Amino acid sequence: MKIGFLGPKATFTDIAVREMFPKEESVPYATIPDCFDALSEDEIELAVVPLENALEGSVNITLDYLVHEVDLPIIAELTCPIRQHFMVHPENLDSWKETERIYSHSHAIAQCHKFLHKELKGIPYTNTTSTAAAAQFIKEHPDMKAGAIANELAAKEYGLSIVRKDVHDIHYNHTRFIVLSKNEMPLSEDGSSFKGYKTTVMITLPSDRAGALHQVLSAFAWRRLNLSKIESRPMKTGLGNYFFIIDIDMKQDEVLIPGVVAELEALDCKVKILGSYPYYQLGLEISKLNTYL
Amino acid sequence: MKIGFLGPKATFTDIAVREMFPKEESVPYATIPDCFDALSEDEIELAVVPLENALEGSVNITLDYLVHEVDLPIIAELTCPIRQHFMVHPENLDSWKETERIYSHSHAIAQCHKFLHKELKGIPYTNTTSTAAAAQFIKEHPDMKAGAIANELAAKEYGLSIVRKDVHDIHYNHTRFIVLSKNEMPLSEDGSSFKGYKTTVMITLPSDRAGALHQVLSAFAWRRLNLSKIESRPMKTGLGNYFFIIDIDMKQDEVLIPGVVAELEALDCKVKILGSYPYYQLGLEISKLNTYL
Repeated sequence: MKIGFLGPKATFTDIAVREMFPKEESVPYATIPDCFDALSEDEIELAVVPLENALEGSVNITLDYLVHEVDLPIIAELTCPIRQHFMVHPENLDSWKETERIYSHSHAIAQCHKFLHKELKGIPYTNTTSTAAAAQFIKEHPDMKAGAIANELAAKEYGLSIVRKDVHDIHYNHTRFIVLSKNEMPLSEDGSSFKGYKTTVMITLPSDRAGALHQVLSAFAWRRLNLSKIESRPMKTGLGNYFFIIDIDMKQDEVLIPGVVAELEALDCKVKILGSYPYYQLGLEISKLNTYL
Repeated sequence: MKIGFLGPKATFTDIAVREMFPKEESVPYATIPDCFDALSEDEIELAVVPLENALEGSVNITLDYLVHEVDLPIIAELTCPIRQHFMVHPENLDSWKETERIYSHSHAIAQCHKFLHKELKGIPYTNTTSTAAAAQFIKEHPDMKAGAIANELAAKEYGLSIVRKDVHDIHYNHTRFIVLSKNEMPLSEDGSSFKGYKTTVMITLPSDRAGALHQVLSAFAWRRLNLSKIESRPMKTGLGNYFFIIDIDMKQDEVLIPGVVAELEALDCKVKILGSYPYYQLGLEISKLNTYL
């Protein structure tokens, strides 16, 4: 099975793919639409792209493609903790406090603001296109007094030395990825990473009016369906119109969810089920992952 | 007055600042936390950062800082359309169809997927750290058969020739920016860009249970308060707990909004008003902006 993911290699998306699908071939793509296209055109059987809180790739592009451009169901969700480390070339291990320039993706630099402010105050940054690119640059420039902020996989793949672990400001920070496929694919319910099922629906209201969302949520509330996420997004037809993405904390059934859909459609809402799928909480045990850069 | 914004120069944030505050001095900062810090430490009087749908800067970092790290009220919101253009060095104007490599930020490349797929199919990309950096690279390499995807300000500032306008896939795509300040600052209600007032509140539910959000929305619905945005975000204390960011379509008053807050607090919700402020729809008339790169 061939899996496409938002590259480059050694990013968090890559980590999620290696952990979830350790035995499969995986191929990095440059952009999120490239991943969708490759799946539509059968170059790959699964696509893994970030959905929320991602360092790499614009999450809104994923949502917009799911909603407006393609009809590819979500077959799984993967959640990974975001852990950033400060690393240098092994030749500079002892002198890392003399670092004169820090390389990383601008979002990673922002995420490690407190560490940088405290331990490397005033040292200039150079932005790179990914944290993996920063690690690669450090590997290729042992002569420079430079360090990178990147993940553990990047340190391993590029042979760098981590001098400070977990330098990100906010712990419990996670990225959610979704797995898309044209075909149903039963995924394992064994193992500690499997956490349950959810169903994602997109709801478009008939018109923008006070209390409309409240009415929509009534259909879920009186059935005691728990919602783990709700997000409003502007429609692409102009300002002032919104649709909602709602995650229901259960697998699609034959009574409750169809009942919600029928009720909302009777209220002139448009409802589309984007997927009903298992979700997994991955642990990022880098040492156990295959590496093949 | 000195205004800090998420840089570098010639980005969409820069365009928004120049259009909204044409006569003020503005200073680019490398990251969103740097903008917040500069404001906290009185280096600047206003900070402008992206809140939603941004190419540059992680929007979640803005929300997380607003909610967890600082107590800086929102004093205005600016909405700008996102327009991307394909541009080359003027020396390569006639031969632009022979472009051998495309430079841009990975999100901009993703946003212009259809144009690239149709008119420049198979041409490789190089990611840059911003669309402005791509434009600068093209300016410095007239000898290369290369093009950039960037905004009109970048074309103007770096003297490039736009050969295809509006090459982004999805029209009506906008970025929302917020303006933060320690002090109240009355902004103009004149002019066509002023669109009204909104109030942003953060609500934390007492526990994660079915129907809790529905109950919260009741407090708004029976008062006929229109909500233009709702978003759930995980708390930083672990998975499974959520807070909500809600935009109410009105200026803070002395009766309705305080009534909602009192009712929600009686239900053991935590409520924080992040700001009550005017919002503006900017038009991006680049030709009228001051340029000073």
